Amino acid sequence: MRLSVDKNQFLKALTNADKAIPSKSAMPILCNFKLELNERGLEVTGTNSDLTIRSTVPYMINGKEIIRDGGYGATLVNAHLLTEVIRKMDGDVINFDVIDNTIAKIDDGKSSFKLNCSRAEEYPDIDLDASGVTFEIACAALSGVVEQSAFAASNRDTRPILAALNLDAINGVLVATATDSARLAQKSIPLEDQDVRFRCNIPARTLSDIVRMFEGVENVTISVSEQKALFEFDHNVVSTRLIPGDYPVTKSIIPERFNYYLEVNAQELLSAMGRISLLSNEKDSAVKLSMREDEVELSVKNEASGSANERVDTFQFNGDRLDVSFNPMFVIDAIKALKSEDVTLCFQGEMKPFVVKNPRDDSVVELITPMRTY
Amino acid sequence: MRLSVDKNQFLKALTNADKAIPSKSAMPILCNFKLELNERGLEVTGTNSDLTIRSTVPYMINGKEIIRDGGYGATLVNAHLLTEVIRKMDGDVINFDVIDNTIAKIDDGKSSFKLNCSRAEEYPDIDLDASGVTFEIACAALSGVVEQSAFAASNRDTRPILAALNLDAINGVLVATATDSARLAQKSIPLEDQDVRFRCNIPARTLSDIVRMFEGVENVTISVSEQKALFEFDHNVVSTRLIPGDYPVTKSIIPERFNYYLEVNAQELLSAMGRISLLSNEKDSAVKLSMREDEVELSVKNEASGSANERVDTFQFNGDRLDVSFNPMFVIDAIKALKSEDVTLCFQGEMKPFVVKNPRDDSVVELITPMRTY
Repeated sequence: MRLSVDKNQFLKALTNADKAIPSKSAMPILCNFKLELNERGLEVTGTNSDLTIRSTVPYMINGKEIIRDGGYGATLVNAHLLTEVIRKMDGDVINFDVIDNTIAKIDDGKSSFKLNCSRAEEYPDIDLDASGVTFEIACAALSGVVEQSAFAASNRDTRPILAALNLDAINGVLVATATDSARLAQKSIPLEDQDVRFRCNIPARTLSDIVRMFEGVENVTISVSEQKALFEFDHNVVSTRLIPGDYPVTKSIIPERFNYYLEVNAQELLSAMGRISLLSNEKDSAVKLSMREDEVELSVKNEASGSANERVDTFQFNGDRLDVSFNPMFVIDAIKALKSEDVTLCFQGEMKPFVVKNPRDDSVVELITPMRTY
Repeated sequence: MRLSVDKNQFLKALTNADKAIPSKSAMPILCNFKLELNERGLEVTGTNSDLTIRSTVPYMINGKEIIRDGGYGATLVNAHLLTEVIRKMDGDVINFDVIDNTIAKIDDGKSSFKLNCSRAEEYPDIDLDASGVTFEIACAALSGVVEQSAFAASNRDTRPILAALNLDAINGVLVATATDSARLAQKSIPLEDQDVRFRCNIPARTLSDIVRMFEGVENVTISVSEQKALFEFDHNVVSTRLIPGDYPVTKSIIPERFNYYLEVNAQELLSAMGRISLLSNEKDSAVKLSMREDEVELSVKNEASGSANERVDTFQFNGDRLDVSFNPMFVIDAIKALKSEDVTLCFQGEMKPFVVKNPRDDSVVELITPMRTY
């Protein structure tokens, strides 16, 4: 294997694929990239078993030669080290030459590195072929879906299925749902192709990592099969395993009728919640929201630290008087995800789940279970 | 204790004093600020035993009233919590009122916090009186001294004295020395007052923290006594313990004559060292600098990862051919500290300590011991 490659394009591929490289692994071979030069270009592959990223440096971009003097072949090189070496090299063109399957000689005319490498055959077999249901979607739309829902997934290991973002496509609508069982976030968007139909559970954190790679890219092609979801965009193929099992049925959980509505300025509520949550912690100290016709107040009590009250000045409250207690972080996350100037909190009663929503956008539902206070 | 205080000035004092608050402490009382309103203003004191910071909010600044409606008194409040509460409050004026010695009521008209507090008498006695040798120095000058020398102090606990920056003032010159026994950095500056004479060992990391507080301040008054060094600037008094014991005599270590001189562009050498040190680690893999009349090269070998060479293009070498091996981080630190366009490396021989210096500034000496390679 041998080639001369444009430094910036090479670095871009390495940086992308590096995101799949585990910091530690029980399988040391996974600390390597697989580099392969073939008829498609230079393929850089990294994987941590759950997530695989293959980023390809093409031979030409917009008529500019990116790879020349190529000799087909493949090798394995330490991923973080190779990425840092290429990042720090000064030259515009990198010469890469594998000698005896044991040394990768990397040279820009001034710096010369000889990195130990391994035989490509030692790398695990990775299936990056598209199969199952395939559709195209705008990157911006998918990023929006993930940003408004994935945060509500669980980050504990007790029920693996709750670490997923559930995607459900039917009748031209894609519904994304995440819940950690104390809160739920759901976002729906229309699909261009009415016939796309699938259900899958993608690890929420992995999906958040994937949409962060979309910068500057317009569309992504997604293929969902039994075992994996595949994302193809720009010169990248990203594959993630799916979480097996049935996702909890959430439809019946989201209430449709409410008895109390509080509309407030999002920034004012966020700011008050930010202050008052200083006295709250995970174990106790729920924040109490007290709503009256002419007065809305937040309060918190914490035996170790003290207590606090916040007056909310700008509000419109419809309903009887009501007190609801909750984990303030859940409400802060929900308001942030809505990205709306005003938010409406919709309540059924003191101990029933309530909804935080954008009064002008029904496509997002943020559901929160109140906390009991004594 | 009771007062109304300008929010921004209060926050500034809290943020300063918070730098002395330990994240954890065997003495829980040290997680508190001592707040005291007296005839000087509102004094905010934080300490971790080694370092104490007292930041004072004065009654007036440039004719503007900063504190009003004051009632003298003192109390202890959780430092991080109070700082965050004040930082996040919206109002321009904070009302602070201690009730029954147990609750501090903090109010800006919209947010109202009641933080648990303790009796001021429980706080340790702290001596912040100036004593010993006192002199004034420009903050910029002292910051420069610390930046160019303190990095070479040891960050291990094996020999406490080596964690110090040694300050030695005599005959109108202040000499700062740090060494971890494998390298040494020394910076000298003139003192206005020829009669200032003292020697002390200040924890290097603490001193680096102190000079970072100098932003926007012109002069600092320093008092050095047997037990402590005191820094007074703006509305702050900062006290640090001294490290007892005799600092190693370093004068005889710094060579005065050299047999080889290499002058190089600092940026080019830094950049090459940055790349090549990717293959270096603490245990082995010293970087070798090979100097010939017409060729200068860096190289490194690392069994686990590989090897590398770097050609240095712009240089002037006087002397015979010479190979010297060293820890590349030491040379990188030294070059960065010099802040000079060109640097000169002065050698006596292969295994003798060498000096990295600014060819146009003799006030800084960066001395490095070579490593043996086999």
